[in-house]
Amino acid sequence: MSNINRRTFMQTNGLLTAGLLASHVSPLFAAPAGTGKTVRLGIIGVGGRGRLLLATLLGVENIEVKALCDIDKNALAAASAIVTTAGRQKPDEYSDGDHAYQKLLERDDLDAVIIATPWKWHTPMAVAAMNAGIAVAVEVPAALSIEECWELVNTSEKTGIACMMLENWSFRQDNLAVLNMIRQGLLGKIVHCHCAHSHDCIDHWFFDPATGNDLWPAEYLLKYNRDQYPTHSVGPVYSWMDIGCGDYLDTITSTATDSFGINDMFVRRFGPDHPGAKRQYAQGDIVTSVIKTKKGKTIVVNYDMQLPRPYDNRWMVQGTRGIYSESRNAVYLADVSAGYHEWEPFAPYQKEYDHQWWQQKYTGGHGGTDFLELKLFVESIRNGTPPPLDVYDSVLMSCLVPLSGQSIAAGGTPVKFPDFTRGKWQTRKPTFALDDRKFTVPGAKTMIVSENGMQIETLLLGVTGHKTSGLPGVNLCLVGNPQPYSWPAIDGQPSHCLYAAKEWGIELTVPKNSTGIISVYAYDFDGVRKQTVTFGSRQPDELEKFGKGIWLDYPFTAKDSENGLLRLTIQNKVNGSSGVLSKLKIAIPGSSK
Amino acid sequence: MSNINRRTFMQTNGLLTAGLLASHVSPLFAAPAGTGKTVRLGIIGVGGRGRLLLATLLGVENIEVKALCDIDKNALAAASAIVTTAGRQKPDEYSDGDHAYQKLLERDDLDAVIIATPWKWHTPMAVAAMNAGIAVAVEVPAALSIEECWELVNTSEKTGIACMMLENWSFRQDNLAVLNMIRQGLLGKIVHCHCAHSHDCIDHWFFDPATGNDLWPAEYLLKYNRDQYPTHSVGPVYSWMDIGCGDYLDTITSTATDSFGINDMFVRRFGPDHPGAKRQYAQGDIVTSVIKTKKGKTIVVNYDMQLPRPYDNRWMVQGTRGIYSESRNAVYLADVSAGYHEWEPFAPYQKEYDHQWWQQKYTGGHGGTDFLELKLFVESIRNGTPPPLDVYDSVLMSCLVPLSGQSIAAGGTPVKFPDFTRGKWQTRKPTFALDDRKFTVPGAKTMIVSENGMQIETLLLGVTGHKTSGLPGVNLCLVGNPQPYSWPAIDGQPSHCLYAAKEWGIELTVPKNSTGIISVYAYDFDGVRKQTVTFGSRQPDELEKFGKGIWLDYPFTAKDSENGLLRLTIQNKVNGSSGVLSKLKIAIPGSSK
Repeated sequence: MSNINRRTFMQTNGLLTAGLLASHVSPLFAAPAGTGKTVRLGIIGVGGRGRLLLATLLGVENIEVKALCDIDKNALAAASAIVTTAGRQKPDEYSDGDHAYQKLLERDDLDAVIIATPWKWHTPMAVAAMNAGIAVAVEVPAALSIEECWELVNTSEKTGIACMMLENWSFRQDNLAVLNMIRQGLLGKIVHCHCAHSHDCIDHWFFDPATGNDLWPAEYLLKYNRDQYPTHSVGPVYSWMDIGCGDYLDTITSTATDSFGINDMFVRRFGPDHPGAKRQYAQGDIVTSVIKTKKGKTIVVNYDMQLPRPYDNRWMVQGTRGIYSESRNAVYLADVSAGYHEWEPFAPYQKEYDHQWWQQKYTGGHGGTDFLELKLFVESIRNGTPPPLDVYDSVLMSCLVPLSGQSIAAGGTPVKFPDFTRGKWQTRKPTFALDDRKFTVPGAKTMIVSENGMQIETLLLGVTGHKTSGLPGVNLCLVGNPQPYSWPAIDGQPSHCLYAAKEWGIELTVPKNSTGIISVYAYDFDGVRKQTVTFGSRQPDELEKFGKGIWLDYPFTAKDSENGLLRLTIQNKVNGSSGVLSKLKIAIPGSSK
Repeated sequence: MSNINRRTFMQTNGLLTAGLLASHVSPLFAAPAGTGKTVRLGIIGVGGRGRLLLATLLGVENIEVKALCDIDKNALAAASAIVTTAGRQKPDEYSDGDHAYQKLLERDDLDAVIIATPWKWHTPMAVAAMNAGIAVAVEVPAALSIEECWELVNTSEKTGIACMMLENWSFRQDNLAVLNMIRQGLLGKIVHCHCAHSHDCIDHWFFDPATGNDLWPAEYLLKYNRDQYPTHSVGPVYSWMDIGCGDYLDTITSTATDSFGINDMFVRRFGPDHPGAKRQYAQGDIVTSVIKTKKGKTIVVNYDMQLPRPYDNRWMVQGTRGIYSESRNAVYLADVSAGYHEWEPFAPYQKEYDHQWWQQKYTGGHGGTDFLELKLFVESIRNGTPPPLDVYDSVLMSCLVPLSGQSIAAGGTPVKFPDFTRGKWQTRKPTFALDDRKFTVPGAKTMIVSENGMQIETLLLGVTGHKTSGLPGVNLCLVGNPQPYSWPAIDGQPSHCLYAAKEWGIELTVPKNSTGIISVYAYDFDGVRKQTVTFGSRQPDELEKFGKGIWLDYPFTAKDSENGLLRLTIQNKVNGSSGVLSKLKIAIPGSSK
């Protein structure tokens, strides 16, 4: 298939896939079968960011950088040198003014372009590329207005060509582990997220730190008051909340502070007479946007890029059964975390739920996320599968720019989100970063230990889902309908228990004619109960005021377990009081399951 | 003065002080001179919270608990026992129905009452007490509607009687240290705060954990969707932002999630057939309110009391020159923190700026804050001074309850705050927790060390405010207009420097005929410069590619310092490059300033 034919095919295919999209079947994107294994790329915009992407891209296997475009010939030369220094063929260069990129897009040998130009060029270039039958990876934000968002969506739907925004924080190792945890149900139903892009870009983007002169994006600070750069905040949050594929953004209210920080920066560094100290900036220092979704969830987003402060994203995701906090680097899971209302370190969860994409380590920009997103983009082009983030993801992240500005201008009035999916969010299924390996809950996994030839399992009673033993042949059945209950942790003591006003018991099934030990831990926060625990037909153990907790061991013999059934009975002896147990240990001769 | 006369006096005085309030002079509150030193108290509501306050109060010197009121006779008996067990006289008891408190307020021997009843009784009881000439400390929230807020303000202004809401988190040791830091200007102009009351109260307030039956405030969850309990979030924030005394709340937009958590709690604990699993709750799980102030600042407030999670307040305060984060237990101060954009631990700041109120340790409820707020309330009554939190503070914190509900009901539309101060916020000065001791910046303080009989001061160049030496007789003057500049910290290397494209220098004034050492640290992130550093008239030190940083020591003699003037000259040798220096050390013979 010639290249001309390929493009013709793509456009035809585009019309077909626009139909397929509507019925939610994965379309063939950008690279039809038979194109071969090498993905041929052009890069438009090779300033600092473009060159970093280029250098990173050279580590992705089986790609060819065919063409580079930039209005700055020095930048072009530096970018070409990166390619040739790596022993690759020198790419063709396009540099003749603002529209040189159109010449680049006329080539027939490009499977995809990467766009890393100033913001206002992102949409026009992406649209032109798709119209030329060339897949697009575009830097953030993909669009700056609602019209631009629709242009991207309409063009991608019309041509069937992929448009992925390079939102690298969606690919962070920590955020993907959180995504796995959420999909495993650990946090219950997700209810609320907070996110921020707190990044002091005064020296980085806006102003020359030595002179106070404007750098290019400073013009936006003079003209607009809005969340200028929301994609790094909301990227991972959208994946956690199935935005665009099960839920959708409904309204946004945005509130900005006045603009204090930029003027003060000039005063502090250059004195009150510097022009920047007196100029009126439109952009408030902090913008807070609150999004309500169609399914009744909320997302808080903070723009925060002008005040002096450490980098921060402040991600937090809260569900009906647990919470993750990036600032605290911690999680809490109801009925799983050992302490009642106590944070647990995130690290063990990060390890257990580490995403399959991170089973190898990546180097390069932004902690390896640049490499990962480019690699996955290239692979999607090579395989003709949808890119990891699609055009809907791209515009849903980007549209906060204009919508936040609209709400701020209207004094914080809620603004409706356009439905860029035209209703498809209701039936689209999540496709981002699917990871269908089997996971176990770290807390539960550590409950079985080997000791002196015994396999010992400790069960926190009162914890839903822990009444199933992990030991071979062992089963638990609660008799008499005890209720699970949690107390505040006291001095590190366990805080879960089973609790009932009447006599109740635990029936254990163990391997017939086996030996072992059943141990129960009686702990009572109130410390005023009097109860008995009876094992089988033996004498009851009488417990009084067992506030500090005691372990009672009941070794059982082959005779006890003759029919495979053991029974513990708990009975309270004080009227109106309850029989409680908090932990149960079962030890049977070892041989791991 | 008889007690009857006292009350008559108070009411007359009330009319006077209402006038005084209007002209912003501290009124005499509640206890006229001559009443004597013992403050006589009644407590209305002696359930769990009331009894904790009572027990705490008994530790405050020179008080007498004269009367207790509760509809529950068992609670009354338990409260009386607390008093008599402490060896004090048994208080009189009032228990005859909902309005028994009115009988208590008819007594002539009470200087103040403490109100710790269910929420709906707070305002009616506080108003009745003020009308009876008795000062009030009322539990949070003081009011549940705008009408109640006005009733409290109008009654306090009319009677001149103090009404303080017991918002204990305003008195926390960490929050008061932050207040001191803010008032010392460390964070610059305050721009934005975040705060939350994240407290899973499912077991604590709302439902009996064993049966799932309602406890008293659960009715509010069925009826209302609003920030039910905002005062613990915003209390300290208002003091940080001078709300009511320099700035004022302008608009609020509130957005609630739907109600997922309560139903899920019932499912998880009691199964899907429990009535609580099916009941429709009005209250959303998370409410996010965004407040804009008259002076263009913003406050984000999160209500979060139904989902399983650790306790959290998430306080963050952000200014034009620094930030404090409670979650991270960290601060960052521009030009002061050693790293560029790196958090510093809060602990040293907490120590340096520890509030004078915390120069002694307190025990008791809520980390000693209950004791502190009660002690300060009692002292204000004894001394006839305004209470630490006044009626305006109380209603400004409380009014978020109805206003958030109003905004949520209107789909997140901004709602205006009534001006409870009737314009006085523009001229009122902050009075809460004034602490006029002298403080020093921890960073700056550690810059001077003693070593081998020398006093050595290290100055980070490029840092505004550090060009003034703390050593006796030493002054620095920059010649040739170098610019301060910050780089990202690399491998712990310093990240500030002075930087100029042309020759520049540092003139040092030292004591005439003194000896010592000047050391300069040349560090260049780019590592490509070639420059000279010349001390006085000596041979220049030629520096090339000094990326890793080097110290150059220049000992000076009495001859060098004959006229008290020393000079360092920095000159770049590469066209278009710059001369840079990052640190300067001055060592002169010791004797601390």
